[in-house]
Amino acid sequence: MFTETDTIVAPATAVGGALAVIRVAGPAAVAVADRLFRARRPLADAAGGTAHYGTIRDGKRVVDEAVATLFRAPRSYTGEDTVEFSCHGSSYVVAELLRLAIAAGARMAEPGEFTRRAYLNGKLDLSQAEAVADLIAASSRTAHALATNQLRGGYSSALDALRERLVHLAAMLELELDFGEEEVAFADRRELDALLEAIERETERLCGSFALGNALKEGIAVAIVGAPNVGKSTLLNRLLEEDRAMVSEIAGTTRDVIEERLTIDGVLFRLLDTAGIRRTEDRLERMGIERTLRSLERAQIVVRMIDATTLGTGPIPPPDFPLRPDQRLLTVLNKIDALDRDANRSAEKRPPTTARPTTEDDVIPMAARRGEGVELLRRALRAAVPTEGLEEGATVVSSARHHAALTEARTALARARRGLAEKLPTDLLSEEIRSVAAALATITGRGAILPDEVLQHIFSKFCIGK
Amino acid sequence: MFTETDTIVAPATAVGGALAVIRVAGPAAVAVADRLFRARRPLADAAGGTAHYGTIRDGKRVVDEAVATLFRAPRSYTGEDTVEFSCHGSSYVVAELLRLAIAAGARMAEPGEFTRRAYLNGKLDLSQAEAVADLIAASSRTAHALATNQLRGGYSSALDALRERLVHLAAMLELELDFGEEEVAFADRRELDALLEAIERETERLCGSFALGNALKEGIAVAIVGAPNVGKSTLLNRLLEEDRAMVSEIAGTTRDVIEERLTIDGVLFRLLDTAGIRRTEDRLERMGIERTLRSLERAQIVVRMIDATTLGTGPIPPPDFPLRPDQRLLTVLNKIDALDRDANRSAEKRPPTTARPTTEDDVIPMAARRGEGVELLRRALRAAVPTEGLEEGATVVSSARHHAALTEARTALARARRGLAEKLPTDLLSEEIRSVAAALATITGRGAILPDEVLQHIFSKFCIGK
Repeated sequence: MFTETDTIVAPATAVGGALAVIRVAGPAAVAVADRLFRARRPLADAAGGTAHYGTIRDGKRVVDEAVATLFRAPRSYTGEDTVEFSCHGSSYVVAELLRLAIAAGARMAEPGEFTRRAYLNGKLDLSQAEAVADLIAASSRTAHALATNQLRGGYSSALDALRERLVHLAAMLELELDFGEEEVAFADRRELDALLEAIERETERLCGSFALGNALKEGIAVAIVGAPNVGKSTLLNRLLEEDRAMVSEIAGTTRDVIEERLTIDGVLFRLLDTAGIRRTEDRLERMGIERTLRSLERAQIVVRMIDATTLGTGPIPPPDFPLRPDQRLLTVLNKIDALDRDANRSAEKRPPTTARPTTEDDVIPMAARRGEGVELLRRALRAAVPTEGLEEGATVVSSARHHAALTEARTALARARRGLAEKLPTDLLSEEIRSVAAALATITGRGAILPDEVLQHIFSKFCIGK
Repeated sequence: MFTETDTIVAPATAVGGALAVIRVAGPAAVAVADRLFRARRPLADAAGGTAHYGTIRDGKRVVDEAVATLFRAPRSYTGEDTVEFSCHGSSYVVAELLRLAIAAGARMAEPGEFTRRAYLNGKLDLSQAEAVADLIAASSRTAHALATNQLRGGYSSALDALRERLVHLAAMLELELDFGEEEVAFADRRELDALLEAIERETERLCGSFALGNALKEGIAVAIVGAPNVGKSTLLNRLLEEDRAMVSEIAGTTRDVIEERLTIDGVLFRLLDTAGIRRTEDRLERMGIERTLRSLERAQIVVRMIDATTLGTGPIPPPDFPLRPDQRLLTVLNKIDALDRDANRSAEKRPPTTARPTTEDDVIPMAARRGEGVELLRRALRAAVPTEGLEEGATVVSSARHHAALTEARTALARARRGLAEKLPTDLLSEEIRSVAAALATITGRGAILPDEVLQHIFSKFCIGK
């Protein structure tokens, strides 16, 4: 077991609530806590898993009333002795408690240091540790499912089993080398090939899942484009209004204001900022159009809005902007209510709305001002994101670091399989296999000693107190 | 003891930390918790003051890992059975946990409902309950001291003792009435007069402390005024920079961005937005000046900045803006470094800086650009706020509601003392005394049944989860 000599302290909750929780973890956690906290009896005499009411004191001065919960090693988050103080959620009280803990011998924790210690103590593997950060950031049901699948082992434990078999076969190969000239074969080449193939299939599948996983975690990018006055803002407001109404049913959730965000049936969508697209010489307007084109490029789904009253009776024209094959196009025919009115007024000069071909799933008739068709669009957006099995534990890669490791493993795999086919000398083959195993090992951090920079990089993304 | 049949739930921490705490309190708290939380054994079988690791579940689906801390009535914040869940600080997890708790029979708590229940269960008096809200909002040492003094009883328990003696004497007076014609005197008139006088002294003192108490709680309003280019922004930046450097030493504190705020030695100052003052016909500039005049009106301390190089050798001119007797004026002579240079250059035509009369405490020589004199100003600002004894528990009124109750009590006291002096009939005198007691009773809520609107008003100011 890894042992740290330092005892660390940090606030574990955000400023602004009724309560604040401050965590102290490390070998001297109980001693530090007893120096600043006065309860009926010292925490040193208390059992793990118990909560104690008392006062936080700076000498004789009472700083706050608090509840201290004691966790004894190894039954704590980091695996070390830990005391969690639950005090009044005042920024002054939190600052005082930190000051007192530091004066009593603790030091401020670095971002992610609690989780880093949990990893070093074998309480979590690296992939699970990263899932903790994702879990905290998760604001939608699917992002949460991704993180919990990963936290509960997910693909990392399956990969780990494959990696261990690989390491075993590499060891067998290396054993053959010891016998030099004798031409013995401890490692079954066919077993090795089958294993490499199985790993290749799995890594390929996982790599393939990253586009979806990453989009689910960050939010599916949606660009709504169309001519000025086609009703983009009306639609946006309608979509957000419905979402807001749903969100506000449950208190404690906040909205991100940087981009408009929308959750439909557990999937987060990010609505990208777009201006209208049309030919113009106006400089300001052209800047708006360039912004729109950039949004289009980033979008996974493009919602094209067309004013139905400007269309003739012919087919819907193709989009007047570039579209990649991996992008999904949804066409909204807005203002169909006006169309009906016009149709009534002009005695069937135009066909009624229902006559317009809507057999195509991707064409959605709408009267945004009245809210008609908005629910259809919501459903179409949601249907464009395949999440089957995700909440039942399907393994999807959402971490860019894992994706990079998997990609590296695939390159190494291709080399190893070629080496095997080409009957590469045993020592070189073993090396290729080791490099596959090494790439896979960086995902969980098991079976590998990762450089400190890598750990630093991973844990620096965590918030303080985790 | 007061009993509620509802079990309530609310997040007790702000969104955005590593951990979130959700509180469930009420007669069914343990049953609700056991329905959504799976640990080694049900919480129903556990003792109060214990913490349990387990999983939050929606049917078979694991929503999160969490620690549940159990508090058994009456040894909890509200005095009822309470379970506090500490889970990952994700807005999704918090929303799910709330949803599950509500599905299991709890309902969302109203703002302040936990503290309201604590009050109704006799765990806190009303003044202490209000102190909880102040304590959470406290961001400076003195605001914190005000709140903790009040939370620990402060003047409210002293007033309560006086009120009880008053009620006793009123009862004695009323007993005399039962004896009708017999002219017995159970209540010693001299004792009554001494008691009324003691209460009058105490309420007068407390009322007098409100100006300071309120300013300490809200922050001392400081207006920095002076001609354009006198160096106001340079000074402001200097003051804030030093404060920021101090604040950033301790993590977990945030800055309020609505107004610039500055803490000097535990006292919060609010720097009011001011433009320059000078005669002008420009409309925009006149609006700025009007804003400055409004800031001046609100200020408790006015810092007047003068460009030392524009002054002759005569005395410092009086301020060119209105000032009330309760406002403190500090005069800053800025750019004294330029004065020295000029003095050197123009061969003693001007007297050196030190020759300018600075014996007056309220005149501060400064070279803001170099940071010289800024510390002097900080000290002068701090010295302008008398906080002696505050941290040792001196009683200062900081609540507008208490101030109103004390003012009402003083009016009633004056009537009662006049009535006593004028030998008012016993029944009328008793009534006057009762109204003094009633006014005092509203402060702690003891010895009075307060209308529900009053409680509603007090607790609606609390945050959710407290």
